[in-house]
Amino acid sequence: MKIGQVTGTVVSTIHLPIITGRRMLLVDLLDIAGEATGDYVIAIDTVDAGAGETVLILDEGTGARQVLDEPEAPIRAVVVGIVDEVSVGQ
Amino acid sequence: MKIGQVTGTVVSTIHLPIITGRRMLLVDLLDIAGEATGDYVIAIDTVDAGAGETVLILDEGTGARQVLDEPEAPIRAVVVGIVDEVSVGQ
Amino acid sequence: MKIGQVTGTVVSTIHLPIITGRRMLLVDLLDIAGEATGDYVIAIDTVDAGAGETVLILDEGTGARQVLDEPEAPIRAVVVGIVDEVSVGQ
Amino acid sequence: MKIGQVTGTVVSTIHLPIITGRRMLLVDLLDIAGEATGDYVIAIDTVDAGAGETVLILDEGTGARQVLDEPEAPIRAVVVGIVDEVSVGQ
Amino acid sequence: MKIGQVTGTVVSTIHLPIITGRRMLLVDLLDIAGEATGDYVIAIDTVDAGAGETVLILDEGTGARQVLDEPEAPIRAVVVGIVDEVSVGQ
Repeated sequence: MKIGQVTGTVVSTIHLPIITGRRMLLVDLLDIAGEATGDYVIAIDTVDAGAGETVLILDEGTGARQVLDEPEAPIRAVVVGIVDEVSVGQ
Repeated sequence: MKIGQVTGTVVSTIHLPIITGRRMLLVDLLDIAGEATGDYVIAIDTVDAGAGETVLILDEGTGARQVLDEPEAPIRAVVVGIVDEVSVGQ
Repeated sequence: MKIGQVTGTVVSTIHLPIITGRRMLLVDLLDIAGEATGDYVIAIDTVDAGAGETVLILDEGTGARQVLDEPEAPIRAVVVGIVDEVSVGQ
Repeated sequence: MKIGQVTGTVVSTIHLPIITGRRMLLVDLLDIAGEATGDYVIAIDTVDAGAGETVLILDEGTGARQVLDEPEAPIRAVVVGIVDEVSVGQ
Repeated sequence: MKIGQVTGTVVSTIHLPIITGRRMLLVDLLDIAGEATGDYVIAIDTVDAGAGETVLILDEGTGARQVLDEPEAPIRAVVVGIVDEVSVGQ
């Protein structure tokens, strides 16, 4: 998993049934020091994350399908948690 | 998923049955600010995307096969939607 | 697999059942000379690794699920061992 | 998929049964402008591609096994077509 | 697959049953010209490769499990052959 910061949402009028009604978040990936990298991923929201929040991202197809309980879903990345704290050296 | 911009099509006379009759798009990957990166992917079109359009790309084999409803298809990347808007900070 | 150094833990109050009760480690990936790269991965601990320890990381979904014996787990990376020695030239 | 240019072949006397008798091509990956990147992949040939030819490469294990019709093959990358033309802006 | 050069071995006293008794090689990935890149992978040996040898590496979980004939093995990378020659332009 990686840590990212939600920076916005993506709107697409032509999409797949599995995506209809779900929020697609634009998530900026953070480096180990918590700084934005400019690299990003479009991830399906599962925790109602808002802009600016730091989140945990799972970027693996089989696991993402299990999180959504949709074995046929054509997805790869999901936001699976909101990060409360990154404790260094513990 | 990633966001890209369609920049052209790829023509191949020697190919696989599953690809015959499908458009293969050359898609330039965009960065988080919407600028072209020069990195690209060849993706199967599913939404009749044209050159210059901003699209959503799914780059994962199992998911791509599900989108095309071809469980045996030797593909990995598909264009799954046209992006209408990327809302930052919402 | 890759070699990394544990630099901290990640705390998330909103998470998935499979992750509840497991330690999520922040692991800095090391280069071939054993130097920190700044690139990282969030991995589930399986060997009670502490901060500063050099570890082996498996970053592949199916394998990670097998290590945890959780065929449905939405995970991708696990710490699978503590590295005692990297012998060069043997 | 990606576009590459065949630059040579790889010879290995110790190898796996599935690879015996197949050509392993050294393929230089091209960027979106068709220039060599220096990044490469070793891919199994399926279209009798020669040195200098521009090819389509599928780099995904499950798909590669389907192309070769070898469900147990330990491979990941195959050359699946020869590129005739990349049309920009169409 | 990629080409690499074996530079050493990794010793871990805490590890998984599947890895017990197998050599874990530290393999420096080579670029298309055969030069070391500094990027590496830890791969399970299957061909008794020694330090300094140029090897073929398969870095894909399902394929790696098939090479070892261990459908449940939590691994991803294996050394599958020793490279005798890379012929450019043939």
